[in-house]
Amino acid sequence: MAVTTSAAQSVNPSAPAFLDVPRGLAGVVVAETQVGDVRGREGFYHYRQYSAVDLAHTRRFEDVWHLLVHGDLPDARRGAAFAAGTAALRRLPEPVAAVLPALAAAGGRADPLAGMRTALSLLGAAKGFRPVYDIDPDRRRADTVEATAAVPTLLTALYRLSKGMDPVEPREDLSYAANYLYMLTGTEPDAERTRAVEQYLISTIDHGFNASTFTARVIASTGADVAACLVGAVGALSGPLHGGAPSRALDTLDAIGTPDRIDPWIRERVLAGERIMGFGHAVYRTEDPRSRMLRETALRFGGPRVEFAVEVERHVEAILAELKPGRELHTNVEFYAGVVMELCGLPREMFTPTFAAARMVGWSANILEQAEDSKIIRPVARYVGPGAPVAVPAVA
Amino acid sequence: MAVTTSAAQSVNPSAPAFLDVPRGLAGVVVAETQVGDVRGREGFYHYRQYSAVDLAHTRRFEDVWHLLVHGDLPDARRGAAFAAGTAALRRLPEPVAAVLPALAAAGGRADPLAGMRTALSLLGAAKGFRPVYDIDPDRRRADTVEATAAVPTLLTALYRLSKGMDPVEPREDLSYAANYLYMLTGTEPDAERTRAVEQYLISTIDHGFNASTFTARVIASTGADVAACLVGAVGALSGPLHGGAPSRALDTLDAIGTPDRIDPWIRERVLAGERIMGFGHAVYRTEDPRSRMLRETALRFGGPRVEFAVEVERHVEAILAELKPGRELHTNVEFYAGVVMELCGLPREMFTPTFAAARMVGWSANILEQAEDSKIIRPVARYVGPGAPVAVPAVA
Repeated sequence: MAVTTSAAQSVNPSAPAFLDVPRGLAGVVVAETQVGDVRGREGFYHYRQYSAVDLAHTRRFEDVWHLLVHGDLPDARRGAAFAAGTAALRRLPEPVAAVLPALAAAGGRADPLAGMRTALSLLGAAKGFRPVYDIDPDRRRADTVEATAAVPTLLTALYRLSKGMDPVEPREDLSYAANYLYMLTGTEPDAERTRAVEQYLISTIDHGFNASTFTARVIASTGADVAACLVGAVGALSGPLHGGAPSRALDTLDAIGTPDRIDPWIRERVLAGERIMGFGHAVYRTEDPRSRMLRETALRFGGPRVEFAVEVERHVEAILAELKPGRELHTNVEFYAGVVMELCGLPREMFTPTFAAARMVGWSANILEQAEDSKIIRPVARYVGPGAPVAVPAVA
Repeated sequence: MAVTTSAAQSVNPSAPAFLDVPRGLAGVVVAETQVGDVRGREGFYHYRQYSAVDLAHTRRFEDVWHLLVHGDLPDARRGAAFAAGTAALRRLPEPVAAVLPALAAAGGRADPLAGMRTALSLLGAAKGFRPVYDIDPDRRRADTVEATAAVPTLLTALYRLSKGMDPVEPREDLSYAANYLYMLTGTEPDAERTRAVEQYLISTIDHGFNASTFTARVIASTGADVAACLVGAVGALSGPLHGGAPSRALDTLDAIGTPDRIDPWIRERVLAGERIMGFGHAVYRTEDPRSRMLRETALRFGGPRVEFAVEVERHVEAILAELKPGRELHTNVEFYAGVVMELCGLPREMFTPTFAAARMVGWSANILEQAEDSKIIRPVARYVGPGAPVAVPAVA
């Protein structure tokens, strides 16, 4: 890690001493957090003091949402009150609902996350969200909850409108996960599919200090309103390097097609230096704990698609261990997330928006934590262009 | 500057060694740039190799825009071609124009920057902007130019709609600055006001690595599309700590009211520890070069408002030098920017959006530079919460 405290370069004699850090801020601690952590070598991650996977196994989405934004797991009474409060916030303000068909039409060709970005921005404006530094912590939290509660309604409405279908009004009597599937499909989902999606959503709420979380915190550090922070985070999440496109792993399964083609298909691509979608992770050096949980979920459903996925996983891990020894490349969250979401009837283009809906909770917790600090995040760049100033030439 | 390379805390034995940096990343070099620099002790800033103030004195806005996004000052022929190309991009795609009345109605109570955020997000979707890592540098640049060219149309349309007026269609035969004032007021502006606003716009294009510029670069580092980056930057700019609310300085002038009240009004507030809006800057330790230029512009207009502003400046600087010796507190860009924009007929609520319109060019140059790097910006946080994992309690 190249760390030097260097004087500014010669073109800028008045600059203060600078601290050089690794490219991409890799390994640079920019905040202290109580939201959670990822322990890559152990294959473990947690929300506050609880294993995220244990939470997914034992709690409902709304309880974990409460844990993230209030700081503690609610008892039954408070959990029910929080869930009921969020259910009442699913309905969109009328002017926002009214404009969604035009938004869907205007942005029709774009990524669904671009639609989420626009609609969430509008929602914040319609609700009159104010700068986080101008409001008290309870109001800030309430703003994050209002935005998070409304996102499934926005996402499913934009999706249905883009397919020529009418949006489905939210139902307050359903859980977050069940209502999400209901608004997407128009049909009340069965308990098994609801629970599978709920576990996926819980497992996806937060995962360390990724680029979208950092973006949300930088924007929050200026004191901007909660919608500004969340919209920036959605933008960062939409970047291809952020990861998190579970549909790509399914595309790999489709491209391979049949068990006999697994071996040649994978070898060819690994030897050509291509990445196999759904395998490998920037942080985990052992099995991704989300992958393990989602594999179990998929196996509960069973069927030929799941058997094929397990077969592909077994072959790919063996081939990667042979061709890239010591790299510890395993399935990541994308691989079985895609399988599970397909089994639950989610269309592929909604995989990443579904991920984003869950991540709203993690971003919220990070925004609330950052807003307590009231210090702007403002690093510096080193000017490395031609020596300045040069006289401005006369117009030729 | 506390810099230590420390092991992770005990709750996370598998974490890599971390690099601690100052809070808010102050003084931490996160990028190398050729876009420009600010030399705080000299009271000087530049775009590429040219003094920004010299550019404002000698060039038109479109030439400096070309400098920022193409890297060089154009000759007369290329400058004219670039200007004509941008003028042709002022008109909004029809579906975006059609939805603006509903956007203005839905987000009516909010900050104009919230409207800009939403409309810019929609524009990117409507134009089908693709991830910056999936397109070539020319296409990326073209996306930034399309967004920047359309922003005055979006801003003035939303402003007029919020006041119950119809938007004014852009005119291609006017310069960027003249067309902006024309769309805002419906009247072709005189040459003196156009040039004053143009000089303000040029002086505001870029100013080092502030929080909105950094936000745009973090989002760009994920490979997200240009609209995602710009929308995030607008969000960061809307934060009260980002600075840049020139209307606040005018509010100060109004609150003081008359020359005889300057001394007691200012003393009372300085002694109470309040900040005087329009004075002091995070970086400049001498006169803000933007302030100097805008004072000259204001003096060209003259009149009682300008005389009063000069009087307030003289008194405040003297009182601050007396009460806060050695602090070198001078007028910042807000003070005379507000005076100049008022003289040019801009309504106060459009001061910050006007600033944001100009800053689109600086954000664009930074996004294009960041996109060349193709490395995600992903720092880390240190978990400082209760030791984990704790067993998830049964539901009480």
